Amino acid sequence: MLKLYYSPGACAMASHIALEEAGMDYDLVKIDLKKGEQRAPEYLAINPAGVTPALQTNEGVLTENAVIMTWVVKDAQPALIPPPGSFDQARMNAFNAFLGSSLHPAIGRTLFARPPLEGEAREAALQHAMARYQLVEDHWLGGGDWLFGDYTVSDGYLSVFSRWARQANLLDRDRFPRLNAHLDRVQSRPAVQRVLEQEGLQGV
Amino acid sequence: MLKLYYSPGACAMASHIALEEAGMDYDLVKIDLKKGEQRAPEYLAINPAGVTPALQTNEGVLTENAVIMTWVVKDAQPALIPPPGSFDQARMNAFNAFLGSSLHPAIGRTLFARPPLEGEAREAALQHAMARYQLVEDHWLGGGDWLFGDYTVSDGYLSVFSRWARQANLLDRDRFPRLNAHLDRVQSRPAVQRVLEQEGLQGV
Repeated sequence: MLKLYYSPGACAMASHIALEEAGMDYDLVKIDLKKGEQRAPEYLAINPAGVTPALQTNEGVLTENAVIMTWVVKDAQPALIPPPGSFDQARMNAFNAFLGSSLHPAIGRTLFARPPLEGEAREAALQHAMARYQLVEDHWLGGGDWLFGDYTVSDGYLSVFSRWARQANLLDRDRFPRLNAHLDRVQSRPAVQRVLEQEGLQGV
Repeated sequence: MLKLYYSPGACAMASHIALEEAGMDYDLVKIDLKKGEQRAPEYLAINPAGVTPALQTNEGVLTENAVIMTWVVKDAQPALIPPPGSFDQARMNAFNAFLGSSLHPAIGRTLFARPPLEGEAREAALQHAMARYQLVEDHWLGGGDWLFGDYTVSDGYLSVFSRWARQANLLDRDRFPRLNAHLDRVQSRPAVQRVLEQEGLQGV
């Protein structure tokens, strides 16, 4: 049985959405980041990096949303990723890597740095982060409903960060019309509504 | 013909190494980060994110080292990645994602933030970064020569960050014996020596 270690509303929600969209059987294990449970010895034995998500599988532990997501949906029907080995899947992987290596650190630092950023440092971090959202708005989100034609795991992944931005009143509807419409579409999916309920959250 | 946009010694070296290890035909296009060429309109037309690497292919542009590397070596013999769809490849992908989303931002901020970090802020960033290297030392590098049995693209990718740390006198030989030995092994590979020469660099 798959077991997902997650924290409500944190980035592991992307992997949680992928599991639910693919109709997988899995258990959820809540890790309370505010209590520091990600640094407890029990969790470090699962993921020594001390971050969520982690996915326990029969073959071992996987980390990193981009990897967990594509792994759990690999046999899903209808498909939730472009065909393996295709250029389209490489492009999707590049988008997921951009979220993980660029947008996530940027908005994470802006909103969640401890101690919190203040003054010019916060302003610089905020501008850097919003420029990353602007890239998604201008270059990745086209005229269609989803990032890559049909719905893929990337849509769920992006929605986590759009959600954070909207909660912080940063997802201005005039500046980011596509991101706002995209988040609304993702939140209306039954699988995502189940994820929100399981994590004890509501749509934003 | 493949065309790699890179900056000497920067993280694009990981993709450059993968191309050379796989024996691919490709052109190199140098982007001078110090002159800000990554933000020039000509380059933003290639990669709107304004970062290197980018790989021009017949099917379009790919970004992100983790994606470029696995794409360019997909048909290489001997193999430079575990079999597609295998759990071993997922683990390798997770390591690459960790480098891109965690170790790279951590050491990049420590060494290259503009304006440079000072005082307590630099010390905190440094400790955070070195803890990421410690994770690789303790949990990813085992007793063998390479990260995942045979040499894979991950070994070249890791070497870029080991190189940065050694250049900054941060890769203490007592604290990081495995990382040091690993970097030495990577640098002794003929493909990596060709990459260094092509980028106008020397081993460290």
